[in-house]
Amino acid sequence: MAKSGENLYEKFARELEEQIKAGSFPPGSRIPALREASEHHGLSLSTVLQAYRLLENRGLIEAKPQSGYYVKWRPRVKAMAIEPILHADLPTDVQIDEVTMRLIQDTHEESFAQFGAAFPDPGLLPTARMNRIVAELARSGRFSREKAVRTEGCEELRVQVAQRAYGHGCSLSPDDIIVTAGCSEAIMICLQALCRPGDLVAIESPTYFGLLLALDALHLKALEIPAHPGTGMSLDALMFAVENHPVRVVAAIPNFSNPLGSRMPAETKRELVAFLAERDIPLIENDIYGELYFSGERPGVAKSSDDKGLVLLCSSFSKDLSETYRVGWLVPGRFREEAIRIKMALNMGTSVLPQLAIAKFLETGGYDQHLRKIRKAYAQKVATMSSAIERHFPPGTVIAEPLGGYLIWLRLPEGMDSLALYREAVKASITIAPGCIFSPSGKHRDCLRLNASAWSEGMEKDLARLGRIATRLLEGEGVNT
Amino acid sequence: MAKSGENLYEKFARELEEQIKAGSFPPGSRIPALREASEHHGLSLSTVLQAYRLLENRGLIEAKPQSGYYVKWRPRVKAMAIEPILHADLPTDVQIDEVTMRLIQDTHEESFAQFGAAFPDPGLLPTARMNRIVAELARSGRFSREKAVRTEGCEELRVQVAQRAYGHGCSLSPDDIIVTAGCSEAIMICLQALCRPGDLVAIESPTYFGLLLALDALHLKALEIPAHPGTGMSLDALMFAVENHPVRVVAAIPNFSNPLGSRMPAETKRELVAFLAERDIPLIENDIYGELYFSGERPGVAKSSDDKGLVLLCSSFSKDLSETYRVGWLVPGRFREEAIRIKMALNMGTSVLPQLAIAKFLETGGYDQHLRKIRKAYAQKVATMSSAIERHFPPGTVIAEPLGGYLIWLRLPEGMDSLALYREAVKASITIAPGCIFSPSGKHRDCLRLNASAWSEGMEKDLARLGRIATRLLEGEGVNT
Repeated sequence: MAKSGENLYEKFARELEEQIKAGSFPPGSRIPALREASEHHGLSLSTVLQAYRLLENRGLIEAKPQSGYYVKWRPRVKAMAIEPILHADLPTDVQIDEVTMRLIQDTHEESFAQFGAAFPDPGLLPTARMNRIVAELARSGRFSREKAVRTEGCEELRVQVAQRAYGHGCSLSPDDIIVTAGCSEAIMICLQALCRPGDLVAIESPTYFGLLLALDALHLKALEIPAHPGTGMSLDALMFAVENHPVRVVAAIPNFSNPLGSRMPAETKRELVAFLAERDIPLIENDIYGELYFSGERPGVAKSSDDKGLVLLCSSFSKDLSETYRVGWLVPGRFREEAIRIKMALNMGTSVLPQLAIAKFLETGGYDQHLRKIRKAYAQKVATMSSAIERHFPPGTVIAEPLGGYLIWLRLPEGMDSLALYREAVKASITIAPGCIFSPSGKHRDCLRLNASAWSEGMEKDLARLGRIATRLLEGEGVNT
Repeated sequence: MAKSGENLYEKFARELEEQIKAGSFPPGSRIPALREASEHHGLSLSTVLQAYRLLENRGLIEAKPQSGYYVKWRPRVKAMAIEPILHADLPTDVQIDEVTMRLIQDTHEESFAQFGAAFPDPGLLPTARMNRIVAELARSGRFSREKAVRTEGCEELRVQVAQRAYGHGCSLSPDDIIVTAGCSEAIMICLQALCRPGDLVAIESPTYFGLLLALDALHLKALEIPAHPGTGMSLDALMFAVENHPVRVVAAIPNFSNPLGSRMPAETKRELVAFLAERDIPLIENDIYGELYFSGERPGVAKSSDDKGLVLLCSSFSKDLSETYRVGWLVPGRFREEAIRIKMALNMGTSVLPQLAIAKFLETGGYDQHLRKIRKAYAQKVATMSSAIERHFPPGTVIAEPLGGYLIWLRLPEGMDSLALYREAVKASITIAPGCIFSPSGKHRDCLRLNASAWSEGMEKDLARLGRIATRLLEGEGVNT
């Protein structure tokens, strides 16, 4: 039924918009061709065209020449204002409270609806194929010549990592790479190699709590640089901070930051590297989500414009191949010797078997195909879950829909406290990540991060329950789901 | 031929002694029964008996009732004087030089005679069986349900470790255990959980360089407590040190220390624990060689008399099951929460696949049989290599033959410098561990550590070359092997 005063094309546009918002046509997908839609809905071609143009004007879809109309990637971040930066924050002694620990523990609560920790969808890991590779390697006796572990990691894997890096514009040799037990260890090694206790590390705010744990463990101080949900760490704020504080090192996630999902523009990455190079300040670049982009080309890394060896690039296979193998890597730039020494002190080297299995996976092909598959799946999960959030969360909630990865950052309506929401949600067997754990000074209490990796239609009821808890908290009523 | 003035029994005793020293009868082995020897050598029973009693008096063999005569375990450490301790050493800023790094790198030089780093004999690791287990696990899809890594490690493995600890008098529950990436990581976690930068750690001198690397990485200070090749860390010296310095934590290897091979007597372990408990000082107990005893019962751990949760027990499977899996464990006592937090910051958790493979090996039996086999093999390697050292090294060299493990500590004759020997040996493609790398202040330059794990008859020529280099250095001649 057309609403009163609605034209045919307006009605058709509204219905299509509802479909898109409900996730039937996720961002990046093609909507029916003009002729197809015209036949299917019994509308004239010009009516359909008018409707499509209306949606195009609204920024919902876009025309691609010789191809048709596509649902647009909608970074909704513009709706999310960030406070103007008048001065950078003062250095903070990092103290992680027990919410973080509890959040990680709750990952193992099978009865919980898991929107909390940032694990990937187990169903999107190539576990069966990895198992076959492991079985083959074991049968072939490939591991039979036990020898001392290499601190820098297996050459087979370093070769593969170097080849892939080259593929996206970052020229590395296998000797530039150190294999680590995941990305967290890579970052831990960087911090230990670069800093002495009490040193000041400039971080994005918000940033993921693993980094805060590391700063805490190493007795380092954090300087929170505001980050924008669209473009990441504010370069202006960082410049101001560096001029006014003794920043020893900068740590950032330029591609699809955790928790914001932001992507720093290529030009900003280059400016960042150049700015830090002038001052000889190292940059720890966490690129763990870099491969999980939703559209276009793989975004580049800051490392590729690093002429002075000051960028330390960290990543891992924990989000796309295996979370439990704990295999990541580090490109330490000019700090290789220090990094090797720290890795040796930590654990001599990374477990060999998982390294070889991953190297074999990369060698035998299919990694790109696998990545295409999971990118598409995560894009869809993020899009449909974002739509569901819009339906179930109280009005005034703002979504910073990411451009890659699978994490969604929300700002709750004025006056709401996500820590209170977290506590009520846990009582209802739902786990979420309240904003305050992403800041060493407890900022971002009006925000929260939801993990969309586990999203399935079946989880909409859990999200609806969470939305009801939020609504009741907002209305100041007793919470009862 | 009898030497002049030698009786028949003296001649027979001398010949047998030579046989024993040449390794034909390694320590712990049974020598021919009286009657057998009598028949074989055409000697009267009483002549053989006289000879055996002579060797018994010299401490070379011992009679066991109803069983016969056995080659005695000869800790030759008594010959090795340690300096009297008048005052404990002053705190040292730990600085590891490049010898340590080079030594570890040289492990991968296939053309080198490997007497340097402390790796186990690859031939004594159950690699084929581990491979079968891995293949079975992979085929069974046991890893198919990928889920978030547990920071404390897989329950399967923690159950096995707890069961085995109980078997040698240390009562643990699986929840007391944290799985780590090897013993080095366990110790790293302890140090990070217990200390702040600048804290003072009392260590054995000499101690293994992995510990020194960790102290260096964490900006901790080392206080060197003299250790005796027979009985390990001097409790008297430690007591003195604790009264006079702000010792935050003590780190020791009571069973078969690296590099000394010493074994702290059970009574001393209890005294150590009691002394530290009175002062609330934690003890980091490294028990990585504890299972590799050469005779008698498995030596106990200090942890078993720990009522206050102040002993942090660290060990691993790197010396007996797989070096490349990097699986160890930690019993953090009352510091569990801090340890979990550090492990999380380091790398979230240990790689799962190697943990499950080792748990399966332990579950399916055969570990004890495997240990019996390798204990015997290492005892034999140590004994025959020690004899070879006696033959090839310059007179005045003193051997601290260990009671377990596979490391041999030597003191060179007066005036010799093991760092010079190390440098000359490297030129001749032989790697050894010079004494100075086991002390943060460069002590023990007259000593060196040799790894007997790779020993085979074929290596005697390499040892002979090393001995010749030492002799020439001693004689102040040009070195030319």
